[in-house]
Amino acid sequence: MKTVLLIMDGLGGLPVKGKTALESAKTPNMDKLVNEGMCGLMSTLGRGIIPGSDTAHLQLFGYDPKIYYHGRGPFEALGAGMKLKHGDIAFRANFGTVKRGIILDRRAGRIQTNVAKQLEKYCSLNIKGVKFIFKSTVEHRGVLIIRGYKGKITQDILDSLTTDPHKTSVKPLLNSSNKLQRLIKEYSLKVSNILSKVPLNKKRKLPANFILLRGAGMHHRVKSLYERFGITSACVAGGALYKGVAKYVGMEVLNVPGATGDKHTDLNAKLKATLDALDVYDFVFLHVKATDSFSHDGDFKGKKWMIERVDKYIVSKLRKKHINIIITGDHSTPCIRKAHSGHPVPILIREINGRKDKIKSFGESHCINGGLGHLNGKDLMNIILNISEKAKKYGS
Amino acid sequence: MKTVLLIMDGLGGLPVKGKTALESAKTPNMDKLVNEGMCGLMSTLGRGIIPGSDTAHLQLFGYDPKIYYHGRGPFEALGAGMKLKHGDIAFRANFGTVKRGIILDRRAGRIQTNVAKQLEKYCSLNIKGVKFIFKSTVEHRGVLIIRGYKGKITQDILDSLTTDPHKTSVKPLLNSSNKLQRLIKEYSLKVSNILSKVPLNKKRKLPANFILLRGAGMHHRVKSLYERFGITSACVAGGALYKGVAKYVGMEVLNVPGATGDKHTDLNAKLKATLDALDVYDFVFLHVKATDSFSHDGDFKGKKWMIERVDKYIVSKLRKKHINIIITGDHSTPCIRKAHSGHPVPILIREINGRKDKIKSFGESHCINGGLGHLNGKDLMNIILNISEKAKKYGS
Repeated sequence: MKTVLLIMDGLGGLPVKGKTALESAKTPNMDKLVNEGMCGLMSTLGRGIIPGSDTAHLQLFGYDPKIYYHGRGPFEALGAGMKLKHGDIAFRANFGTVKRGIILDRRAGRIQTNVAKQLEKYCSLNIKGVKFIFKSTVEHRGVLIIRGYKGKITQDILDSLTTDPHKTSVKPLLNSSNKLQRLIKEYSLKVSNILSKVPLNKKRKLPANFILLRGAGMHHRVKSLYERFGITSACVAGGALYKGVAKYVGMEVLNVPGATGDKHTDLNAKLKATLDALDVYDFVFLHVKATDSFSHDGDFKGKKWMIERVDKYIVSKLRKKHINIIITGDHSTPCIRKAHSGHPVPILIREINGRKDKIKSFGESHCINGGLGHLNGKDLMNIILNISEKAKKYGS
Repeated sequence: MKTVLLIMDGLGGLPVKGKTALESAKTPNMDKLVNEGMCGLMSTLGRGIIPGSDTAHLQLFGYDPKIYYHGRGPFEALGAGMKLKHGDIAFRANFGTVKRGIILDRRAGRIQTNVAKQLEKYCSLNIKGVKFIFKSTVEHRGVLIIRGYKGKITQDILDSLTTDPHKTSVKPLLNSSNKLQRLIKEYSLKVSNILSKVPLNKKRKLPANFILLRGAGMHHRVKSLYERFGITSACVAGGALYKGVAKYVGMEVLNVPGATGDKHTDLNAKLKATLDALDVYDFVFLHVKATDSFSHDGDFKGKKWMIERVDKYIVSKLRKKHINIIITGDHSTPCIRKAHSGHPVPILIREINGRKDKIKSFGESHCINGGLGHLNGKDLMNIILNISEKAKKYGS
């Protein structure tokens, strides 16, 4: 039995005039799924804990972030299509503009993707036998990998490597209190020097002459979902982070043209990719990012609109298939907070030949009395394996 | 206050035409208990996880299988009435028929119990100072103990000792990659040689000339329920496995003639044994196997029939006693799956002078809204100790 896990990022919310965005949205197809299955609430990392998107997804896939999370950088690098080796250190990177040592702009005038791409070739360097490998992604964004560093790497050292102060009119954080910081300082100054001389940059009002780093993480090779649980899986997502987490746990990350990870994403293309993947894989992870982006903007109407679009273009079609369907969020992002929160997320499970509860509609307040009760994120993969008939008996 | 725990094995199910077997069954006495107490759902080993019968019962008795489970063999041996020493290796065994090294029949023509019993005396051997002790049980079944082996024993080694390939027309798995395998190979060939020459076997079309082994486990002496919790306990069961787990945790396993562990089991005899035991013990574990056996056969009507019989012959009488009663399953075995599943089991607790909820009937969907909420199997023994007034305060 095949299973789709549809994650609407940041789905959970807090009521505005009595209703959350999900409760305000017209979702006839999700409501039908609730009638055909069970719903409940889920605290992804435990009650009240505010999940990051990376840790939340790891937990939902059965990878305890306390064991498997080593910083965001590797997921961004994997999601950008880079190949990582065990022990690589990866960062999220921004092209920025620095003048006389001070950050003028953290996005180099939001440099265009195709322009930034022309700078990429100047940004991979070899320093004292250590490889710095840079890849430009969207606009000012990119990823940097450090490969071949032999010294000791602790979490404290990783946490000390950020050079992006997240504000302007200050210096980049180029410290020298450990060997890796000194290497990164050398790289940063050398690459800044090179970028400053590139003709393209000389014409720019805000030249892309500095690479700001954040989100350092060390890549660990881990056993895949298939190796651990015997389930084959694919990912349909737009955002690099989600593709990266999926790749990390060994999912096949499908290339879906039109899946942009924003409100313009092509939901039909994602639906089609999901249905095609179901012919091949036991389990498909389908991710929609825009619900979270609207929430971060405090845009309640936008979030409601996006939920309705997902209901209309994706859930309506999925529902008619003879498959298990799970719909939930990775965490709550209440519009009134414009940030992730620790409130539980609503979840529905339509299991073919499964049990039903009496709930009629999908929403945080309805889910309180759902038959699933209150789940912890760590339960979800076990439930997926059980309803997919892929779980192995423990004992005899 | 005395407590009875009635486990209907594999009780939980999935709906067929809208109802599970338990929901379809007429259970007026269980329903009255629900009205007099509370119900809920229970995931024995955690959400979605599919329990074996051995691991499930260990957990329900308060013995975390991650610590206390070392394979099924010791439970079968204990349940067959053998005495085990710490470090003994125990197996489930079958008399099989082998011809020119190939397995013709895994049950030696389903040899009768009294015939197999005559072969028992040939099957205990001493090999290189290591004792092989065999006991014949029901039909072709038996148990084997290896005692006095001094070498290292890891879980991997235990898992490598199965000689039963679970199919015919192939050779028994007589490997030689570790010392124990070599000993077992020597025993297997020697005993096969002896059995082949027994006159009784020469007359059989399918001689019982080979002992096939599976379910290897190492016996560990553990603290009893009484030592750990100060509660005295007895077991009323038919199946050897359940008696074995009960003995392992230090219960008094009662001899109940007529308790067969199948659909012909004498429920009146089990009821009487339970009532008698309540005069002596704080806690009685009463096990009914046939609900699970019907489920494995996909026999929805049989499961329903058995539940109704338990309600009529056991629960009706127990209910009238001034005792706490808990009724649940060790795991779900949906008839449509014909196998254990990870769906939660329904549970009811009628506590004398206890709290009540508003649920009126015993069934998976009713239990969703029960006052017990969603329990984990590890909670159950603490609840039993509490309602039996045997729990010790933690702290002061």
